Amino acid sequence: MNFVSDNQAGVHESVLAALEEANSGSSPGYGEDKLTAAAEKSVSAVFETDCDVFFVTTGTAANALAMSALCPPWGAIYCHEGAHIQNDENTAVELLTGGARMVPIAGEAGKPDPQLMRAHMTTATIHGVHNARPGAISLSNVSESGTVFSPEDIAPYSALADEFRLTLHMDGARFANAVVASEASPADLTWRSGIDCLSFGLTKNGGIAAEAVVMFDQAMAEQFAFRRKRAGHLWSKQRFLAAQWLALLKNDLWLSNARHANAMAHRLAAGFKAHPCIELPWPVDANELFPVVPDHLRERFREAGLEFYDWPAQSDMTRFVTHFATDPEDIERAIEIIASKK
Amino acid sequence: MNFVSDNQAGVHESVLAALEEANSGSSPGYGEDKLTAAAEKSVSAVFETDCDVFFVTTGTAANALAMSALCPPWGAIYCHEGAHIQNDENTAVELLTGGARMVPIAGEAGKPDPQLMRAHMTTATIHGVHNARPGAISLSNVSESGTVFSPEDIAPYSALADEFRLTLHMDGARFANAVVASEASPADLTWRSGIDCLSFGLTKNGGIAAEAVVMFDQAMAEQFAFRRKRAGHLWSKQRFLAAQWLALLKNDLWLSNARHANAMAHRLAAGFKAHPCIELPWPVDANELFPVVPDHLRERFREAGLEFYDWPAQSDMTRFVTHFATDPEDIERAIEIIASKK
Amino acid sequence: MNFVSDNQAGVHESVLAALEEANSGSSPGYGEDKLTAAAEKSVSAVFETDCDVFFVTTGTAANALAMSALCPPWGAIYCHEGAHIQNDENTAVELLTGGARMVPIAGEAGKPDPQLMRAHMTTATIHGVHNARPGAISLSNVSESGTVFSPEDIAPYSALADEFRLTLHMDGARFANAVVASEASPADLTWRSGIDCLSFGLTKNGGIAAEAVVMFDQAMAEQFAFRRKRAGHLWSKQRFLAAQWLALLKNDLWLSNARHANAMAHRLAAGFKAHPCIELPWPVDANELFPVVPDHLRERFREAGLEFYDWPAQSDMTRFVTHFATDPEDIERAIEIIASKK
Amino acid sequence: MNFVSDNQAGVHESVLAALEEANSGSSPGYGEDKLTAAAEKSVSAVFETDCDVFFVTTGTAANALAMSALCPPWGAIYCHEGAHIQNDENTAVELLTGGARMVPIAGEAGKPDPQLMRAHMTTATIHGVHNARPGAISLSNVSESGTVFSPEDIAPYSALADEFRLTLHMDGARFANAVVASEASPADLTWRSGIDCLSFGLTKNGGIAAEAVVMFDQAMAEQFAFRRKRAGHLWSKQRFLAAQWLALLKNDLWLSNARHANAMAHRLAAGFKAHPCIELPWPVDANELFPVVPDHLRERFREAGLEFYDWPAQSDMTRFVTHFATDPEDIERAIEIIASKK
Repeated sequence: MNFVSDNQAGVHESVLAALEEANSGSSPGYGEDKLTAAAEKSVSAVFETDCDVFFVTTGTAANALAMSALCPPWGAIYCHEGAHIQNDENTAVELLTGGARMVPIAGEAGKPDPQLMRAHMTTATIHGVHNARPGAISLSNVSESGTVFSPEDIAPYSALADEFRLTLHMDGARFANAVVASEASPADLTWRSGIDCLSFGLTKNGGIAAEAVVMFDQAMAEQFAFRRKRAGHLWSKQRFLAAQWLALLKNDLWLSNARHANAMAHRLAAGFKAHPCIELPWPVDANELFPVVPDHLRERFREAGLEFYDWPAQSDMTRFVTHFATDPEDIERAIEIIASKK
Repeated sequence: MNFVSDNQAGVHESVLAALEEANSGSSPGYGEDKLTAAAEKSVSAVFETDCDVFFVTTGTAANALAMSALCPPWGAIYCHEGAHIQNDENTAVELLTGGARMVPIAGEAGKPDPQLMRAHMTTATIHGVHNARPGAISLSNVSESGTVFSPEDIAPYSALADEFRLTLHMDGARFANAVVASEASPADLTWRSGIDCLSFGLTKNGGIAAEAVVMFDQAMAEQFAFRRKRAGHLWSKQRFLAAQWLALLKNDLWLSNARHANAMAHRLAAGFKAHPCIELPWPVDANELFPVVPDHLRERFREAGLEFYDWPAQSDMTRFVTHFATDPEDIERAIEIIASKK
Repeated sequence: MNFVSDNQAGVHESVLAALEEANSGSSPGYGEDKLTAAAEKSVSAVFETDCDVFFVTTGTAANALAMSALCPPWGAIYCHEGAHIQNDENTAVELLTGGARMVPIAGEAGKPDPQLMRAHMTTATIHGVHNARPGAISLSNVSESGTVFSPEDIAPYSALADEFRLTLHMDGARFANAVVASEASPADLTWRSGIDCLSFGLTKNGGIAAEAVVMFDQAMAEQFAFRRKRAGHLWSKQRFLAAQWLALLKNDLWLSNARHANAMAHRLAAGFKAHPCIELPWPVDANELFPVVPDHLRERFREAGLEFYDWPAQSDMTRFVTHFATDPEDIERAIEIIASKK
Repeated sequence: MNFVSDNQAGVHESVLAALEEANSGSSPGYGEDKLTAAAEKSVSAVFETDCDVFFVTTGTAANALAMSALCPPWGAIYCHEGAHIQNDENTAVELLTGGARMVPIAGEAGKPDPQLMRAHMTTATIHGVHNARPGAISLSNVSESGTVFSPEDIAPYSALADEFRLTLHMDGARFANAVVASEASPADLTWRSGIDCLSFGLTKNGGIAAEAVVMFDQAMAEQFAFRRKRAGHLWSKQRFLAAQWLALLKNDLWLSNARHANAMAHRLAAGFKAHPCIELPWPVDANELFPVVPDHLRERFREAGLEFYDWPAQSDMTRFVTHFATDPEDIERAIEIIASKK
């Protein structure tokens, strides 16, 4: 029973079917094809606004390319100290922005403390050319602690962005799970909350490699196509990337996939909560759980066939992730293993 | 009848079948999966040596990442003035190398003139820190003029690389077509000819997005994984990238695909050659033709349903490309159109 | 008798005197001092307009930093194939712009052919994201062939800049010599001719290390201070840089220095022209001469004590440079040596 | 009475005299001159070993260029969270390394906690390509808290560098003050303690703009000249940079200058310590003091003519800096002001 990561899941069958369907005859390349146009339009529809959409194939590419348009090379990017963009994407931001500075900010349960963030920005601003100039804020929704930002949660960061004239980015590698969990519309959760740019990921949600940079500010989007191309992220046969998007957006499959993943996580969380020796320090908002599990129990779980990560954020912390393809029977079996005395 | 580019073709059915097959259960991510290991091993087998293989999804990524390992940021990269890496990949090399200098070299039919290249290298070397230091040579095989380098053709560049202590790179976006055309083995055409690194592309040859950086020098390969990751080119679900390679390498499908493409091109070339007003200034070695077609004929061809590029290298030049899925009947029809008086 | 380069000259005595004078008591650092403010104002006065002035200490820094503000990282920079920025500054432009592409253009006597330039721009524009996007033109005045652009000479490039929405840069490492030679005012030779940014050099004209980026477009100048700082080009004790400028601009010393240098060059040119076996293929507009001198004569000149460069642009070409401190008696002796039979 | 910074001081008279002396006749440029050779040799003599010396003109340039040779673009650089390279040099490291990651480490009085550093390195190493790879450690000696590392203090960092195969850098913007304070020889304080590269600054110690990258490992120094050139930091008239070094190294002027500065600081520290309401939380090892001064006293001091920084590290903290030209009478007057009731 694999709860290691939602990117260890396979691909939704409708995605493979869409590739088959896309594979008929010749087609213009480099995004000039009909499927790309249709997929871009579908993304705009999701957000109830005309937005600029750039398909890429990894979250790292989406995040770092986004930052390159949102922050100058001498800018500072503020994010939670546990954020993926800070800890799990090597120095992609530095490479693609031309040298911007990451500024990790502490905060509870994956949410950077706005006051602390503000203090950093103030100090940097006073210091003029000597320090990296405040450039952008990046929020992960779902966060690296599995928590979700509602529109209200985003407000203080949006206020900071206004005060310091920064751009506001959302890393939505699990955006679907955040939409489902927050019960906010995609529009409310992004541009209506002041988000300038979203890294919209569907890879973890049933795609093969389906990520997009979604820009809500046309001026920032200008010339982004050049950025994507020179980073080697423009596919020649892009119809096969667009097809994944069309398949997952059709009939809101992306949302029902996420709904399933979140429900599986909540069910599993109940199993952990029932155990007297296991704590869940962070709310289980979406499809990730971070139970703190004593050493001997971790060992027993693994022997019984549960696969999961040890998580470095706290001592004895682990991470369990569910996804679109998580089998409800696996959840029930996992709960039994957790509850078992032996 | 689309002869615009081999990247406008679809995908070989065995590739889609391989994706279906790869889509069973969970799997470790980021290239730690079994299919990736198997595909890397298959590539090594193709070259009859242990080589370091890094899968990516675009030729631009493969080329620019390769150059970043082959040339220092203050280095000069010598290639033909018409090379893809020079003309069609924006400033990817500059971005991923950290600022290396492209030095385009003239030469007949897509092959840079070694004497001219040598003169550039000599001048730069004499000029010391003031000029970009000679760093690498990049040859395209098949070249942008559709011609093929045999091992003998590579020798003078390899000698230059030795003389100036440069690295030697091959852009093999159409490597399969070059292997078939040259009748040399993949090993003879690369490391046995002094090639340090190959951008090995199968996208144009039946893949969806299947490119690889193949390093024959272990020291150069060191830490290349960091380069790929920070450029956003490491897939989480990499088994679906590896599956394409396994499908295309199995039973030498890549070579039979290329054999077909080349044969179609030769047949079509005969059709052009038969026309009294059309010239083919460059040999048709592989799957690309560059007929010089008077204006009125070009118009007639297009009206009759032939799709192709106008090519900027010479006045009235056009480009026709065949591929693994080119229908022999289309070729026959095209030949009829060419021969037709009206 | 050293005619190798004007940067092999020493420093004008008034510059050293100015350093002494600047060395009294404490002073704010990093350009917040009074001398810097005064020097910036003096530069504005030279150009009869408010301009943004950023002092640096090498021409390479001035040029490459200027380009970083004038051209995006995916942009193409067009200059003469012999330009200093292309041939003598390593890959500084690539480094500081974040990867822009140099596009060398052929042309007579140091002036890039506007028609050839236009053809390159057109091809690149048509090719969209696949090629570097036309970004900037850089003209050297004085050119690397010792020739001078008048305002009329600049017009075709300014027209190209307008047509393709490019920025227009002037490398004025020998700007003083160009002003004197053209008899145009500094304003006429720059912003009134469409120049957006000038690399204004006084190092070769009596300074120790006195270069400036002069921006005539305030929007382009925005945040340039961040660029200079992060490249390590903001001095803490900047008053000693500003003092050089004040000394050289005072009473138009920079122009009288250049007038002397140009006059010495013209006198020397007459000496070369008088020799039946020596040709001067390029006009001697300013303070550089490029006589084509047969091998045996070059040897004789060197034995007689003349120091000069062999110049790679043409066979048997040499370069002689005069400067503010060139001794008229040295010129007369040189002319005697040239004329001497033995 | 200016105690704001040692870079607000003027220049030692012997430096200006050396410029006069250097200003005779012509000289080869770009560091090919005799003074540069002599100055490089003098630096080697200081360190009792053959080292590679590269003169530049700002500490930011020295640090960031040094890091570019010591750390790959995907590397992490560990330093104290208050270090100049982290807080006061914008994103110079990111620019010149091609995107390396700064990792600030907390620690007492300007010295990063080795255990905390080790924990960061361990986590990063385990995380493989996903995190920046541990690359280099940078220590500031004198630190940003005015404290000095002795050879014994350096040992734990050197051990970490060995364990993780990192390079070890010292930011010696105030190296002279550290040598004097530690009573260790320059060799003991650097390469004999495991330092691979020193940013050696004499600007704050009587120079105009006199910084050097000193490399103790020849392999790392290789091609460093290309790095300096492309960053625009190679002077044409470099003799005037070398002359400053010769003047300050001659008869150990740099050390007597530093000895004076340190003595002045110690005298001033005694004045602060005598005040019942003022604390000095950090030892005054060299020429910087960080007294914590209540608000009303700060105001009184300023009214009485003392100039100093408020320092952001702690509430009510200030910074006073002495230097080679600090007038002992100013110190006595400052002490009187501090002691005065009104």
